[in-house]
Amino acid sequence: MTKISGIGEKELVRYIIANSKEIIPDDTAIISLNDSNLISTCDMLIQSRHFPENMSYFDMGFKAVTVNVSDLAAMGSKPLGFLLSIALPKDLELDSFKEIINGVLKACDIYSIPLIGGDTNEASEIIISGTALGLCDKPLMKNSYKKDDLIAITGDIGLAALGFNLDIEDNIYTKKALKPRARIKEGEILKKYGATSATDITDGLASELYEIKQDGFGFMIHEDLIGISDEYKKIASNLNLNYLDLILHVGEDFELLFTISRENIEKLPIDYKVIGVVNDSDVIEITLENGLIEKIENKGYEHYVSE
Amino acid sequence: MTKISGIGEKELVRYIIANSKEIIPDDTAIISLNDSNLISTCDMLIQSRHFPENMSYFDMGFKAVTVNVSDLAAMGSKPLGFLLSIALPKDLELDSFKEIINGVLKACDIYSIPLIGGDTNEASEIIISGTALGLCDKPLMKNSYKKDDLIAITGDIGLAALGFNLDIEDNIYTKKALKPRARIKEGEILKKYGATSATDITDGLASELYEIKQDGFGFMIHEDLIGISDEYKKIASNLNLNYLDLILHVGEDFELLFTISRENIEKLPIDYKVIGVVNDSDVIEITLENGLIEKIENKGYEHYVSE
Repeated sequence: MTKISGIGEKELVRYIIANSKEIIPDDTAIISLNDSNLISTCDMLIQSRHFPENMSYFDMGFKAVTVNVSDLAAMGSKPLGFLLSIALPKDLELDSFKEIINGVLKACDIYSIPLIGGDTNEASEIIISGTALGLCDKPLMKNSYKKDDLIAITGDIGLAALGFNLDIEDNIYTKKALKPRARIKEGEILKKYGATSATDITDGLASELYEIKQDGFGFMIHEDLIGISDEYKKIASNLNLNYLDLILHVGEDFELLFTISRENIEKLPIDYKVIGVVNDSDVIEITLENGLIEKIENKGYEHYVSE
Repeated sequence: MTKISGIGEKELVRYIIANSKEIIPDDTAIISLNDSNLISTCDMLIQSRHFPENMSYFDMGFKAVTVNVSDLAAMGSKPLGFLLSIALPKDLELDSFKEIINGVLKACDIYSIPLIGGDTNEASEIIISGTALGLCDKPLMKNSYKKDDLIAITGDIGLAALGFNLDIEDNIYTKKALKPRARIKEGEILKKYGATSATDITDGLASELYEIKQDGFGFMIHEDLIGISDEYKKIASNLNLNYLDLILHVGEDFELLFTISRENIEKLPIDYKVIGVVNDSDVIEITLENGLIEKIENKGYEHYVSE
């Protein structure tokens, strides 16, 4: 009999979506409410799977908010409220529990999303399930781009992927791995300034590009526009890791990947990097630094974790 | 150092509430939205803790919706949408996963609450976290009762508590233990017909009475009004269990406990049982069948599980 380990997470979610008339597969759920939309999303973090060994309790709590607020950001949504459901091992120190909650509260404060509900449970490891709610009149969908739109990102990617492989604490890579930040303000600004689509990068740029791809459309990414530092390539090489694999196929960046017309990008008042363009090639490709063009494989975090 | 096992779940939740300016401790969170209110609640079910050994995968999925919709019912809220976050062991059969989802979908259909979002994860046991969203213009709060209000319940209690102790499948007790139902229609009707307060009975009647108690108010419950059958007492006695302990201190009933004026109860078009009255004694008591009056102890599911 087939075990679920033989099926990827995306396939399992597809089963759920296929059997529910109501689910529109975008970054969040959308419910029409008067002249606006209720945006809602939930994500669960499991200690053994999502929290590196050296992650503090505070950062665990903070990240649980980040991963959910990131989905609101991808819709350009205003935050409305956050609900927390947390399961804890019974031998956890009370102070550690308080640290987790402090992390949650700090993140809610930073993202201006009120913590409106909380629930605790007991389990064999720390499990934090969060639900983020938002309001948005015209949500930014994943695949509403047009041919010739520019493809851009709100910050450097691949940093966390490298950070997961490092023992030393005090560098930008480990910091990104342990303390990712949702781009909630940027998301609202993207919507306001006419971005045509957006999603957040969690499973790696390649995975997200395949998520947003539609028939008849293709993407050309340019390696030299991604801006990978010599230091990054050197550290990856020292660890016997392929730097492009880290950049494209791991994720945990929480930057926004968005598309926008050439006219509108000029007025955009946030940090961003144009990394490519939407075309009608029907394939997803990258022009490497040496000029060669390669197809980008559809491999994301799932692939990385299982190898 | 103090471990969280030394602190009850209610205390942990109190820490969260005390540190968040926004949480009103009622059955759900309430956010004012235009001329209505967004009602939201989340609850997590953990296989080793919430699913009896003999519970089917279908019933696990169904219950995950029930526990959340029950909180909407307690507010008299109209259902709006349900989000599902589920973690599964990697050696789970695919068919078992599908059964869980079928249970979720069936419950969503029965409760008229659309499944609007889904997410899957991997963990060492089945963990289902659900978020239920609702809309309600005037939510039914927990403690807005008045002196002389009648106290009532929407159905028999204690059935699941007895059912957890039985091996045989085919009886009303085991059925209630494995297949509890949320009283979502009853909740909306209670609100419409002027109930003054409501909450759902999950940790046992005693626990809920203490949850809703305010200074200056007391409750007198009458054992003979609860309507405990001879069969119930006999089965409990055969198992060496105190039947009143099961009725008051275990829970998992998902019936609504509500208060209502004597005038308004006459028009109430649902099944209910009056079990007591609100007074100003400042204590919570029960008049036993033999006429003796006892204080009801504040012991709920937590107590039951730890003994």
